Amino acid sequence: MQLPKAEINRLRSLRDKKNREAAGLYVVENPKVVAELLAAGHRFAELYATADFTASASASSPACTRVAEVDLARISHLPTPSEVFAVGKIVRPMLTPGELAGGLTLALDGIQDPGNVGTLLRIADWFGFARVLLGPDCADLFSQKVINASMGSFARVKVFTTDLADVLAKAETGLPVLGCELAGESSYSLRPLADAVVVIGSEGRGLSPAVAARVTRRITIPRFGGAESLNAAVAAGIICAALRAG
Amino acid sequence: MQLPKAEINRLRSLRDKKNREAAGLYVVENPKVVAELLAAGHRFAELYATADFTASASASSPACTRVAEVDLARISHLPTPSEVFAVGKIVRPMLTPGELAGGLTLALDGIQDPGNVGTLLRIADWFGFARVLLGPDCADLFSQKVINASMGSFARVKVFTTDLADVLAKAETGLPVLGCELAGESSYSLRPLADAVVVIGSEGRGLSPAVAARVTRRITIPRFGGAESLNAAVAAGIICAALRAG
Repeated sequence: MQLPKAEINRLRSLRDKKNREAAGLYVVENPKVVAELLAAGHRFAELYATADFTASASASSPACTRVAEVDLARISHLPTPSEVFAVGKIVRPMLTPGELAGGLTLALDGIQDPGNVGTLLRIADWFGFARVLLGPDCADLFSQKVINASMGSFARVKVFTTDLADVLAKAETGLPVLGCELAGESSYSLRPLADAVVVIGSEGRGLSPAVAARVTRRITIPRFGGAESLNAAVAAGIICAALRAG
Repeated sequence: MQLPKAEINRLRSLRDKKNREAAGLYVVENPKVVAELLAAGHRFAELYATADFTASASASSPACTRVAEVDLARISHLPTPSEVFAVGKIVRPMLTPGELAGGLTLALDGIQDPGNVGTLLRIADWFGFARVLLGPDCADLFSQKVINASMGSFARVKVFTTDLADVLAKAETGLPVLGCELAGESSYSLRPLADAVVVIGSEGRGLSPAVAARVTRRITIPRFGGAESLNAAVAAGIICAALRAG
């Protein structure tokens, strides 16, 4: 169908963060990610796609609007428009008390780089973590860059934006809270855990003092060479892998 | 001292890749990285620094020229100039036959993203790998983005830009060549190896067929959740960690 001009303008306007936030919507344009999420049963609020995309992907979603390439090019936020433009509703679930006790949690403290946040969401998703906590200083989950870097993981993992220090202060007594530090127990001695929180700080500043105070197990990835540090996502990957089956 | 105008122009001109290549020079402006490398005995061809930098870092290198902040701002390639501008000579060592037999090698196949190449160099450096091989399709070692993302690792790790498939074809019989694949032995079964090559392909296309044909051990990082893949550097970090002491 041909999109009315007002619709084109509305969808185009979502390229501005301010407009997305006012509307409570996020946008995904990566066809691989949209196809993957649709196949997994994810429901978008609105979906605009070319005939090519609907033919190849399982895009028989009731909300799918087939549009001409020329219209897709008009609404797209990309320099080279893709075959699909998916719009989702921003939902920010609340963490319920006691929820941290079930399964593994990856908690991000002050990770401002959206590429890093996206990569960390993929790690949590790959290793089947039950949830991710984003501290207040982290890049926003629904920013375009986080969505892109996370591939589909932003929609598959349960993510809570929350005050980390406060949540950890109220966590169950005895719940292991693992943090990366320069001098701690070796990551090679980690064994799988059913319930635990892994806190990851920013590369520049590490963990904030209020979060560091809640760490109960300080983990060090032994160094064999000269680098001063590992990338935060790489360190998280090594620790998350170690917390799974050996 | 005050830098002559011709010098300022020459150093400014190095912000263009073409000029850096013609001069055979690379530039580092991150003060933490420059200080770290100087402390480790690294020699730059030229070094320009403010009095503040020379006072704090062990910048008593014979080649250090103390310059005023206003001159540093003129030569800097950064929007916000730092306290130091280090110039190094590009050296591209040749891999000697038989060299792969000694120690661990990280081989990058078609990793075009310079941030990923830099992160992978840090991983090789952290885990004390003897060398890194950059295949012809990888981001250039001396590009500004690779240097920045690698922190100081670009200068600490021995890096060879080479034809990967050819080098692996000529490698010693019996040298383990590990590659990440979707169906292979579990990364949890990896035990430390003294000599081995780990090949890492790009996220989008994986290993090139000529390199994949040289892989002798196909490694899979077991997946526990929904993500389609891990970031290439995260996967490399998990495998490199596993190849070190347990």
